[in-house]
Amino acid sequence: MSKRTDVNELGEFGLIEHLTQGIELKHNSSYKGIGDDAAVLDYGDKLMVVSTDILVEGIHFDLMYSPLKHLGYKSVVVNVSDIYSMNAIPKQITVSLAFSNRFSVEALDEFYEGVKAACKFYNVDLVGGDTTSSRKGLFISVTAIGEGEKEKLAYRNGAKEGDILCVTGDLGGAYLGLQILEREKQIYLSNPGVQPDLGKNDYIIGRQLKPEARRDMIEEFFPDAKLVPTSMIDISDGLASELFHICKASDVGAILNEGGVPIRPDVEEQAINFKLDPITCALSGGEDYELLFTISPDDLEKVRYMPDIYICGEIVNKKEGIKLHTKGGNIHPLKAQGWVHFGNE
Amino acid sequence: MSKRTDVNELGEFGLIEHLTQGIELKHNSSYKGIGDDAAVLDYGDKLMVVSTDILVEGIHFDLMYSPLKHLGYKSVVVNVSDIYSMNAIPKQITVSLAFSNRFSVEALDEFYEGVKAACKFYNVDLVGGDTTSSRKGLFISVTAIGEGEKEKLAYRNGAKEGDILCVTGDLGGAYLGLQILEREKQIYLSNPGVQPDLGKNDYIIGRQLKPEARRDMIEEFFPDAKLVPTSMIDISDGLASELFHICKASDVGAILNEGGVPIRPDVEEQAINFKLDPITCALSGGEDYELLFTISPDDLEKVRYMPDIYICGEIVNKKEGIKLHTKGGNIHPLKAQGWVHFGNE
Repeated sequence: MSKRTDVNELGEFGLIEHLTQGIELKHNSSYKGIGDDAAVLDYGDKLMVVSTDILVEGIHFDLMYSPLKHLGYKSVVVNVSDIYSMNAIPKQITVSLAFSNRFSVEALDEFYEGVKAACKFYNVDLVGGDTTSSRKGLFISVTAIGEGEKEKLAYRNGAKEGDILCVTGDLGGAYLGLQILEREKQIYLSNPGVQPDLGKNDYIIGRQLKPEARRDMIEEFFPDAKLVPTSMIDISDGLASELFHICKASDVGAILNEGGVPIRPDVEEQAINFKLDPITCALSGGEDYELLFTISPDDLEKVRYMPDIYICGEIVNKKEGIKLHTKGGNIHPLKAQGWVHFGNE
Repeated sequence: MSKRTDVNELGEFGLIEHLTQGIELKHNSSYKGIGDDAAVLDYGDKLMVVSTDILVEGIHFDLMYSPLKHLGYKSVVVNVSDIYSMNAIPKQITVSLAFSNRFSVEALDEFYEGVKAACKFYNVDLVGGDTTSSRKGLFISVTAIGEGEKEKLAYRNGAKEGDILCVTGDLGGAYLGLQILEREKQIYLSNPGVQPDLGKNDYIIGRQLKPEARRDMIEEFFPDAKLVPTSMIDISDGLASELFHICKASDVGAILNEGGVPIRPDVEEQAINFKLDPITCALSGGEDYELLFTISPDDLEKVRYMPDIYICGEIVNKKEGIKLHTKGGNIHPLKAQGWVHFGNE
């Protein structure tokens, strides 16, 4: 019997690195390959940006509480978010599905209603896809294609010592939304008569079920301010994990200030209800689809008055590592946790 | 309870049509959307062609007889074939996987070896993808991107009355390869001691496990002869089904000559062994990844001496329908059968 290494030994990112090692790009049009939120292709005047994501039932969503329409919407959002995080504009999308006959035409219609609503909102064209059968469950694969300018694209590897770390929006909400939905699911499963108590958590639950990508930043705020981030990534796996990606790609360290990480009061309150530290939800929760980016210190004035942007740290020398400066004044090494566990069949 | 229409009532193609109705393209760069083997995008001097396909364990492949390396190779081939069928050249590919921890790192390495071998052979760059967990089974989603020239792209909708129907290669082999593999699997399952009897069927089994796309036609034969097909499609679902696609998109009818459909003697022999009509295997079998195309009658001399191209019929008025002219001299309506059945969970 030959050697068998469990995929969980490498972890998701280690596995990607392992599987894609030694890949060389041969075409001039392959401007940038694996290693960012999207690949960059050079097919003419503008650069094209391509990103692809899979969403799997039972792993990324639970149809017990995810309405199919929201799921269709979210499938588009997570992909356009990857295009925005390159400082590019999404233009086209393909949506592929594999599903069993547990899904009726009406159910698929609902899913596509969400896809079409997101395409309309984000101004992207649905140009293709594949539809096929699965033995069990729903699999969604989306590829988004966008357009960017060579001098404006933002990669993971552009952060420099002294750059300022910024984040948009607020963090931790999507993760807490998931906790609330899971709690109500468990209550429902043991007492099917009980109505779910979603309380006044519309915002938090909405962050999980129907997130939005930061189109406003890329299409309005950055161009209006003539701001080009030195590096950027979208927050799909949690702030800590994304910061690690930027630091690794840019070969730098970072100090993250807890006080600068935006967390809404209602998110804080819910975190405490679940006996969770709010900052942990922001650092490791994921699925907020906000943007983490770095700017040159010369651009500090540009972001200071921009809406919904928070200065949350600084890029430092690699030797200093990646650290969290807590509200209490302590500094300790940051841990990245966000990654998929490959489960048992 | 709201209405529940089983997906099988619409069929795969009916379902796609249903789900994608009313989709409008808003961007100038969205040159051609849903309805061909690939979408066409206009991002500069050349047109870009984008195609995406999902392969699902238990539906499209069986790991009991598909070596993972071959599966990786085939995943690339089925997608570059869609780009070639637009008369375009594939340049980049993204490969996404969802899998459980039943798959070891070594197993995934084998899969990627096949992917990389195909990328090398077809001269495409692997530029991205996504890797995630599934609850059960392996799901593969590939997106291929290629480059084409506006005047040379071949769509499904360009066939005209009087055009000549051509097909490359030989048909039916992939389907019979699957029959042989399935037979040996059943024998093995009831008698695990028995070695599989694959006989002298290397060619036929190879057509199923490691098909090739017709790069030679698109990159050499067509350009050398200055031939641009009036319409084209790759044969993934069976000749009959592909001919229906061309006729529907082009609003024409067709007469297919049985005598012109290329079937190898060993494929014929195996068909008879399985008590199947060889022409039925070619018409409904699928997965041959050959090209079906139409040419203007003015171009007849160009294809007459081209290797591995067979003249197999004629495009006629829509009123005449789509008919098969048998070797015995009979003419009867052709039926298209190739489509996925959405199975029970």
